[in-house]
Amino acid sequence: MDLNEDTITQAVLQRNATAASPRLRHVMALLVQHLHAFAREASLTEEEWSAGIEFLTAVGQTCDSKRQEFILLSDVLGLSTLVTASNHRKPRGCTEATVLGPFYVANAPELPLGADIAQGAKGEPCFVRGTVRRDDGQPVADAEMHVWQSDEDGFYDVQHVDREVLAARAVLRSDSEGRFHFRSIVPEPYPIPHDGPVGRMLTALNRHPWRPAHLHFLIHAAGCQTLTTHVFRRGDKYLASDAVFGVRSTLVADWARQEPGTAPDGSVMTSPFHTLNFDFVLARADP
Amino acid sequence: MDLNEDTITQAVLQRNATAASPRLRHVMALLVQHLHAFAREASLTEEEWSAGIEFLTAVGQTCDSKRQEFILLSDVLGLSTLVTASNHRKPRGCTEATVLGPFYVANAPELPLGADIAQGAKGEPCFVRGTVRRDDGQPVADAEMHVWQSDEDGFYDVQHVDREVLAARAVLRSDSEGRFHFRSIVPEPYPIPHDGPVGRMLTALNRHPWRPAHLHFLIHAAGCQTLTTHVFRRGDKYLASDAVFGVRSTLVADWARQEPGTAPDGSVMTSPFHTLNFDFVLARADP
Repeated sequence: MDLNEDTITQAVLQRNATAASPRLRHVMALLVQHLHAFAREASLTEEEWSAGIEFLTAVGQTCDSKRQEFILLSDVLGLSTLVTASNHRKPRGCTEATVLGPFYVANAPELPLGADIAQGAKGEPCFVRGTVRRDDGQPVADAEMHVWQSDEDGFYDVQHVDREVLAARAVLRSDSEGRFHFRSIVPEPYPIPHDGPVGRMLTALNRHPWRPAHLHFLIHAAGCQTLTTHVFRRGDKYLASDAVFGVRSTLVADWARQEPGTAPDGSVMTSPFHTLNFDFVLARADP
Repeated sequence: MDLNEDTITQAVLQRNATAASPRLRHVMALLVQHLHAFAREASLTEEEWSAGIEFLTAVGQTCDSKRQEFILLSDVLGLSTLVTASNHRKPRGCTEATVLGPFYVANAPELPLGADIAQGAKGEPCFVRGTVRRDDGQPVADAEMHVWQSDEDGFYDVQHVDREVLAARAVLRSDSEGRFHFRSIVPEPYPIPHDGPVGRMLTALNRHPWRPAHLHFLIHAAGCQTLTTHVFRRGDKYLASDAVFGVRSTLVADWARQEPGTAPDGSVMTSPFHTLNFDFVLARADP
């Protein structure tokens, strides 16, 4: 029972050693060792410990049905990128994965290919098309593609407190040759929610809260590993300093600005619009 | 911008490197390194990361004005004991410090020496006395002694949702010769609040939530380092397995059971009562 700063770590490990799950025992042992090593190496004061308790409490209390401040914390500390990367080591040539982010919604509406997924969200029109293939080159038919993005003000639908409608968000399915196309709006850069504890932490760290403009994709397909990724807009000023460390150079693409005229879907556009072509390559689940 | 599981840690450290406070930079660098090393060494899966996010969110949302679940988490992981021990390295002979716990209340009533601090809390009567000295042997007059404890059902006053009265809790001041005495009740062992996420974690770890019976003291005195400690009841079955790792053998004392008769304060007791004698030695602030 005579614990001190040198013996406490071993005592906690021993106390946790009878957990039924070997995996829980292993993860908790690593967690306790790193948590203690952090406090020891930092010579953490009681005031700092107390500030940490208050910060984590505020992070938890900022979470609600539309906001996940702990995911945001994981994102800005690079933990999300680390976990995403180590869980999606892919064969060469596959589309890289990046973070899911806090704005994915499971029950987005399924729309037909060619639909305007903006559903009223504001922004310059954009026509997106591409093909989904496997890493052996075969096209992937009937891939379930979840797409979501911010509007021209940098907000996702779920961030608009005054409306319940999902917008600039849809589920699409690739055709028999793996092709997809849809109309949407041009995404714009936006700051991650920074009016809470994570925002205050970024300020203290002299960091900005901006993410470069991007379009989210989450793609499920039979026989393939699920792909969670973004496509980033080339030229965005925040590409090199994404607040959540999500950018990969292979995911940067051109949103080409087009003069008024006929759009790729045949409709006549009286104002400028954009086109984006991006192909996805999925790793096979069991190659 | 081409981050992966190997390069992300250095990228986050660089991003945080312009924080104005050198101390914040240092602490955050250690935090990020240990957080990432934990995830890397554990080969944390996305499901485990997600379970961690949900757990921390639940811990934050369990906190309210009467409950601090993050302190409880720190306590059961041994972090509180580590921080307490490393911040209170004392000269030989000084009373050891232990964890504050979540039930300290700043505005407890100040009562005169000899008072019954139980204030209606239930339990067998107990008469406590002792002396406060400095580590050079000099008595400490006018030491401000915060005392608090559980009742016979194992609850602190603030845990009783149906009443607002503070009980079994007081502030006392040592006399001109450093002596103190008061009446209270015998503390009993109790489980830490275990109906929340920390309780579920303890269950998964095959750990019980019990703390051995104890009396809390927080002692401020001019010219001395503040002492936060407990006195533990000898013979308690949980002394060797305190859920929060708070026990030190030098803090274990006898609550001596006495037959009905005259109590130390001269009052006539018609039922059995207990006596506890415990002396405190404070480290000088500037020896």
